Amino acid sequence: MADVLEGNAVVGQSGGPTAVINQSLAGVIEAAARSGAIRKLLGARHGVRGVIQEDFVDLSGLDAGLLERVAATPCSALGSTRDKPDEEYCRKIFDVFAANNVRYFFYIGGNDSADAARIVNELAAEADYQLRVFHIPKTIDNDLRVTDHCPGYGSAARFVASAIMGDDRDNASLPGIKIDVIMGRHAGWLTAASLLARRDADDGPHLIYVPESAVSEDQFVGDVTEAFRRHGRCLVAVSEGIEDEAGQAWGARITQTVERDNHGNIQLSGTGALGDYLAAVVKTRVAEELGVGKLRVRTDTFGYLQRSFAGYASPVDQVEARLAGTTAVEYAMAGDHDGSVAFRRTGEGDDYAIECFRAELADVARDTKPLPAEYLNEAGNGIDESFRAYVAPLVGDLPVLGKL
Amino acid sequence: MADVLEGNAVVGQSGGPTAVINQSLAGVIEAAARSGAIRKLLGARHGVRGVIQEDFVDLSGLDAGLLERVAATPCSALGSTRDKPDEEYCRKIFDVFAANNVRYFFYIGGNDSADAARIVNELAAEADYQLRVFHIPKTIDNDLRVTDHCPGYGSAARFVASAIMGDDRDNASLPGIKIDVIMGRHAGWLTAASLLARRDADDGPHLIYVPESAVSEDQFVGDVTEAFRRHGRCLVAVSEGIEDEAGQAWGARITQTVERDNHGNIQLSGTGALGDYLAAVVKTRVAEELGVGKLRVRTDTFGYLQRSFAGYASPVDQVEARLAGTTAVEYAMAGDHDGSVAFRRTGEGDDYAIECFRAELADVARDTKPLPAEYLNEAGNGIDESFRAYVAPLVGDLPVLGKL
Repeated sequence: MADVLEGNAVVGQSGGPTAVINQSLAGVIEAAARSGAIRKLLGARHGVRGVIQEDFVDLSGLDAGLLERVAATPCSALGSTRDKPDEEYCRKIFDVFAANNVRYFFYIGGNDSADAARIVNELAAEADYQLRVFHIPKTIDNDLRVTDHCPGYGSAARFVASAIMGDDRDNASLPGIKIDVIMGRHAGWLTAASLLARRDADDGPHLIYVPESAVSEDQFVGDVTEAFRRHGRCLVAVSEGIEDEAGQAWGARITQTVERDNHGNIQLSGTGALGDYLAAVVKTRVAEELGVGKLRVRTDTFGYLQRSFAGYASPVDQVEARLAGTTAVEYAMAGDHDGSVAFRRTGEGDDYAIECFRAELADVARDTKPLPAEYLNEAGNGIDESFRAYVAPLVGDLPVLGKL
Repeated sequence: MADVLEGNAVVGQSGGPTAVINQSLAGVIEAAARSGAIRKLLGARHGVRGVIQEDFVDLSGLDAGLLERVAATPCSALGSTRDKPDEEYCRKIFDVFAANNVRYFFYIGGNDSADAARIVNELAAEADYQLRVFHIPKTIDNDLRVTDHCPGYGSAARFVASAIMGDDRDNASLPGIKIDVIMGRHAGWLTAASLLARRDADDGPHLIYVPESAVSEDQFVGDVTEAFRRHGRCLVAVSEGIEDEAGQAWGARITQTVERDNHGNIQLSGTGALGDYLAAVVKTRVAEELGVGKLRVRTDTFGYLQRSFAGYASPVDQVEARLAGTTAVEYAMAGDHDGSVAFRRTGEGDDYAIECFRAELADVARDTKPLPAEYLNEAGNGIDESFRAYVAPLVGDLPVLGKL
């Protein structure tokens, strides 16, 4: 490594946590320790907010046992933030970096974090200050561009698949209509993973709704009615971000008091409103279609458990999240460049494998990647079987169920 | 075994499923096969309903591989029912038994199932028809009398503990007030298991509310405000069945359209209404107490995942549920008596062990067992540390987390 840049480094975590976001942090800590160039690795408490408040924890020389325990712990060990830095905020970040001889910045987060990293990087370039900035992707939504998939997604998908698998058996035990609301504001990747729960023809989910396929209330009622007639029960997996035929999110239409976060996003998670609304639609309109007085209708909103549940992360996801962390540091050591760590799939099925490559920050920042049309069924109420090959290796082995 | 009664046997599953209810079924199948007295073992589809409709599946000679897969599958493989048989219904059951030379009836269920078993048993005695009836306990609520604990509880408690453990890290990542609604209509056993998530003084759950301790809205607001001031965040574990100072369930007060099941129980599960209500209380009243304009408040209702999640059952619970099934058959073989299988704890801590004993059906039927007062804290907003020794062995090893 000809181009050694000595100095301090900062690492932070941002946005909604995942079950493996600390694996990436552990990767950064490990690789920084052996870099030979990073003198002190500072962990910023609550992401960029910790940077501007100079609220740091020294991560150099962390005990190996503690490192592994932290790595296996869900959610952001450094704390997270929803702050979306504007130019002025980024200037403050840069000033702190310059004052502390910070030459490396590793930011573990989603596309908003990639954008913040990009702006800080530009400010450093303008000031002719050598700073190497690497974004380390994480999101259970799996909606970052460029990369094949995102660390954090596999574990959330594993949770969803196991939950739907069990809930399908619950629904078969006491037949009725069950609606499960799954995270995913704009992208249906996580909801689509419920497909893995379906092994036999009669298995749920019998219907899967994602934001990429608009669904009207009439279609929803018709679909559920037909599925119930066919199976004598119906399990529905629905994304919290589903949109109606006019392109409006059902959740937004329903929620009377709309709460927005700092990124202008409407709060869809952390409330049972969409599920309760859909249940009410089924109890009235589907019951009428079926000509029955009363229907057993239940709804669950999987909520924050999808990203935080302890002890059930995907083994592959853990390894890959760690790799993303170490790779970011190695890329930063290797030359005067910046970017985001991305995955490319180099093997499928039993030979599943990935390799990392460097993506440009600007290509990852801001816009997101929806579920491609090839994975959506024509009727707009299901996921194509071809999606199984994409998602199965990311989730790891799932329980094998038995039926009588 | 001097007193061999030859004939057929019926096994059925009833009520809300659990993650290990099929372990008990597998236990019955195994023990029946080696009994030497049971000619044919008939599985009743959907419990007593399958009996009166003579909807049976022959479980004799089941393939060993399939048996193990079924055993490891959550929820009732035979299907369940909410039917609560009255005297006439029980007479029909008895008629089917008599017509099919059924001499053994194994019913896996809660206290209502024990009661149904008891009535059928009395009818058989009146008719001078030799029938041996055994109830095999299951309930995630853990509220059956006589037994130390119920098969199904440990797995649900394991799910709750891991969920709260992860969610506490989520809440620490993005501080705010988080409310998690946990199953348990009348008894707080399952909600109390959230205590296992608390390892350090700052860990959540910071407040635990169970139906056994009445809580007024004023107390709830005061408690949350104080906890938030102390920890800078607050994680609340609350039972779906909490009652106010007038002894009314919060859920019933809130739910405008009250749905009751066949046992006259109000539907508290399968809706996000209580969580959303509590969140609204916090957003207004706690925010006012704290003098802040806006609070980050989220709520999750853990719902059916607690009893159905695939792949995360407690190992101890699996073994014990199997044991309850085999023991019921062995008791039935051993003499002309009936009853319910109960557990007695014979060792604590690392030496945790149980032994089975026979309980009378009448002692298990109907009434339930609340969380004893010794496990409730004085303020009515937490669980005493002594509960840990009771619940920990039932749940099995939990993840060990690391913090920075």
